[in-house]
Amino acid sequence: MTPRVYLAGPDVFLPEPEAWAARKKAICGAHGLTGVSPLDALDDEPHHWAGFPLWRQIAMRNEAHIRSCQAIVANLTPFRGPSADVGTVYEVGFARALGLKVFGYSTVAAPFLARTLEATEAVERDGAWWDCDGMLVESFGLFDNLMIPGGIDDSGGHLIAEDAADRWRDLAIFERCVRAAREKL
Amino acid sequence: MTPRVYLAGPDVFLPEPEAWAARKKAICGAHGLTGVSPLDALDDEPHHWAGFPLWRQIAMRNEAHIRSCQAIVANLTPFRGPSADVGTVYEVGFARALGLKVFGYSTVAAPFLARTLEATEAVERDGAWWDCDGMLVESFGLFDNLMIPGGIDDSGGHLIAEDAADRWRDLAIFERCVRAAREKL
Repeated sequence: MTPRVYLAGPDVFLPEPEAWAARKKAICGAHGLTGVSPLDALDDEPHHWAGFPLWRQIAMRNEAHIRSCQAIVANLTPFRGPSADVGTVYEVGFARALGLKVFGYSTVAAPFLARTLEATEAVERDGAWWDCDGMLVESFGLFDNLMIPGGIDDSGGHLIAEDAADRWRDLAIFERCVRAAREKL
Repeated sequence: MTPRVYLAGPDVFLPEPEAWAARKKAICGAHGLTGVSPLDALDDEPHHWAGFPLWRQIAMRNEAHIRSCQAIVANLTPFRGPSADVGTVYEVGFARALGLKVFGYSTVAAPFLARTLEATEAVERDGAWWDCDGMLVESFGLFDNLMIPGGIDDSGGHLIAEDAADRWRDLAIFERCVRAAREKL
């Protein structure tokens, strides 16, 4: 059995997301992993789920997919703000609690502090940065909120963050992350 | 034993976060719950954690706190963008995977779609909204990315989203969420 990896990310919001997922799965396959997309049908989906609204079915299906995997490969590229997509981060926390290995990648290399300073009107005071709402800006030199690299490191996973010319269409950084996953699974 | 609830939220970034956490814990106590703050010391923290950098210690401690609780009460108020704080959302996913009941609240009532349209230069095409990067805008009429209300509903929890005059200093909506948690625990 090849290890199963859940392909989390806002990639599901791209046009033609199934074709995109197929490309990511092909890369997984080439490296000896089975990529599981949030868009995949679920084997043996409980019949009563059909009575739930679509969004509930999607949420339940994604959780079930994660439970069936040994690892998660998450697209943590900043999404509509300084941080990663919250749907993806929910899944990273979910996977971490289940003991999956967590791998993440981003096509933006700038660290969290720089991205947050750019997105908020933060000011420096007493050696710390405070945003326009008077909330502290985390400055541990990390890639995103500390829970995310914390989960990755604790799980024995890996994070790759590098600039790509096309933030949402690059697959080279994803492929390097898949390769890192393969080495550790 | 009173039920233990983990108090997730970007409240840790407020000035004097310990005093703020004490206020939230007092509200929990008044409703028969033990509030557990991310800032609390951990009983029996493993000695070797002292060798990790501070941010790793915080991440490990937060995960350990969540494991010790029966529920999570998460401040899901939009934070530096259309969605909730990713550190909080990581913890919601983590708690959900462990089977905790998930409660959430927000001091902003506007739905996710309206917030996202306001934050991105989205355009309508073929009956859907697409942001300035050409990514689909989720439009299920929910409060945030579907994984979050999905986890809340599946866990048997509850979500309260209402406008407050002071987004980060209101405790009335938090208290209503605590009361809802008490009824279900």
